[in-house]
Amino acid sequence: MSLPEKVTIIEVGPRDGLQNEDNFIDTETKKEFIKKLELAGIQEMEITSFVSPKWVPQMKDAVSIVNARPREVRAIALVPNRKGIEKLLETDCKDIAVFVGVSDSFNRKNINKSTRESMAELKPIIAELKADGFFIRACISTAFYCPYEGKVSTLDTLKLCHEFAKAGVDELSAADTIGMATPIESFLLFSKLKKELPTIQLTAHFHDTRKMALANIFAALQAGIDRFDTSAGGIGGCPFAPGASGNVATEDVVYMLGRMGIETGVDLDRLVDAIDVITPHLSRKIDSGFYRFSKGGHQP
Amino acid sequence: MSLPEKVTIIEVGPRDGLQNEDNFIDTETKKEFIKKLELAGIQEMEITSFVSPKWVPQMKDAVSIVNARPREVRAIALVPNRKGIEKLLETDCKDIAVFVGVSDSFNRKNINKSTRESMAELKPIIAELKADGFFIRACISTAFYCPYEGKVSTLDTLKLCHEFAKAGVDELSAADTIGMATPIESFLLFSKLKKELPTIQLTAHFHDTRKMALANIFAALQAGIDRFDTSAGGIGGCPFAPGASGNVATEDVVYMLGRMGIETGVDLDRLVDAIDVITPHLSRKIDSGFYRFSKGGHQP
Repeated sequence: MSLPEKVTIIEVGPRDGLQNEDNFIDTETKKEFIKKLELAGIQEMEITSFVSPKWVPQMKDAVSIVNARPREVRAIALVPNRKGIEKLLETDCKDIAVFVGVSDSFNRKNINKSTRESMAELKPIIAELKADGFFIRACISTAFYCPYEGKVSTLDTLKLCHEFAKAGVDELSAADTIGMATPIESFLLFSKLKKELPTIQLTAHFHDTRKMALANIFAALQAGIDRFDTSAGGIGGCPFAPGASGNVATEDVVYMLGRMGIETGVDLDRLVDAIDVITPHLSRKIDSGFYRFSKGGHQP
Repeated sequence: MSLPEKVTIIEVGPRDGLQNEDNFIDTETKKEFIKKLELAGIQEMEITSFVSPKWVPQMKDAVSIVNARPREVRAIALVPNRKGIEKLLETDCKDIAVFVGVSDSFNRKNINKSTRESMAELKPIIAELKADGFFIRACISTAFYCPYEGKVSTLDTLKLCHEFAKAGVDELSAADTIGMATPIESFLLFSKLKKELPTIQLTAHFHDTRKMALANIFAALQAGIDRFDTSAGGIGGCPFAPGASGNVATEDVVYMLGRMGIETGVDLDRLVDAIDVITPHLSRKIDSGFYRFSKGGHQP
């Protein structure tokens, strides 16, 4: 059994983790959270989103967050459309994420466009920004299952990934948006992606909704994947059921990888410091295994 | 990647799950719980423990539980020592579990004997009972880590397993008692056990304390293991931190295996019926992924 020796953690907490929080979290707290994540050793991170403040008021401070971003790490802003890009271009940030759902229904519910329409809008944007030296990460939602359509065809997922690769993106992050993928499905999809797109940065994004996230990560490692999206505290990630987990927790992933001798460069104690900054402002409690233990449990 | 086609679930909820509940749960409720688990398709199950009612009052109704046990499935009673055996022999139950910790410190804390002393007591008992046609399951606690000693030597674990095998037990259940084993450790230990003890029934017992249980099960499957201890609702299992998970939840394991096309014979809806019987009597809430979803979440 051969696993990578090093793994890159892409922290999505400040963006994916906070966007579903109804109460506005003040900008200084967000900046402090991001700063502490950087101090914990995070090298790549989604920090905010240039969405309409009408739809996601939590992200209305995107410009301020981007302007205060750490410069030593890759601090990525999500931009859903051309409007978002225009806003982003007011800043000097050149690391962005775009997203499209493989499933039409999911994409429509999210951004009121079909998958095709989204791609048609994004391709020229990607071309322009690449010409201008941007780093572009493409997030592939519903790469395995869709909450409206059920099973998503692997062929459709692969096709969309190829399309993004051809458009020139630097990174592909394939997401199990509703936490339904099994380790076998994880292994199969990522083995194919690794084989068909060997030169692009491939990232796996798992949700712990049904407790399979670490199993899926272990399977993806076996497929050669060495980049994982995670969220400090496991915050965010579209949980569909009350109390259900969303994003897999950064600390649980870092703990498991570290214990298997796989280097991430992330310091767990400092990661807990970062989570401590944000927890008082969240509507939900943190239920990651490691965070619970760090708060007084028995840890030999 | 080759995985078993079928898996046997050994349900430990009625024993391991309930023994740490401080409030006595009435005997009829326990019987109903066991009955519903049988109806869900469970074929092997730990139903009670013949421990001193002084130490574990929850199990004071062991004789009554054993006498009312389902006869179509393997209903196992845990017996920690000769005293327990004497009590058990008042019934007609011939399926038992014994347990020993690989770690001396753990074994002492649990039953006030060194591992050696436990083995010295158990070996003649095993010989007697085997001669009398008993089925004997040996539970190996702290097979990976000990809460007092830290890392447990794999050699010590293997040695104890060999000793039990030589003593004539039918089944070996190796447990990650504090939920610290990684998938790699799971794969390595169970690969060795499978190779060195190919004829004995080998079972893996994982705790979800650090969210690695399903990953460990996925790794053990790859090592050829097709028997897993699980607990309906994830109840029990020595959680050392408040709110921390203990035993991996039967429903999460059955869900993952089923979704990978691995047959368990367990019906998830009926399993939820069984959990519904016991939840009102528990001091903790159920936090398994599947159970949460079964209660109104979005499940495509």
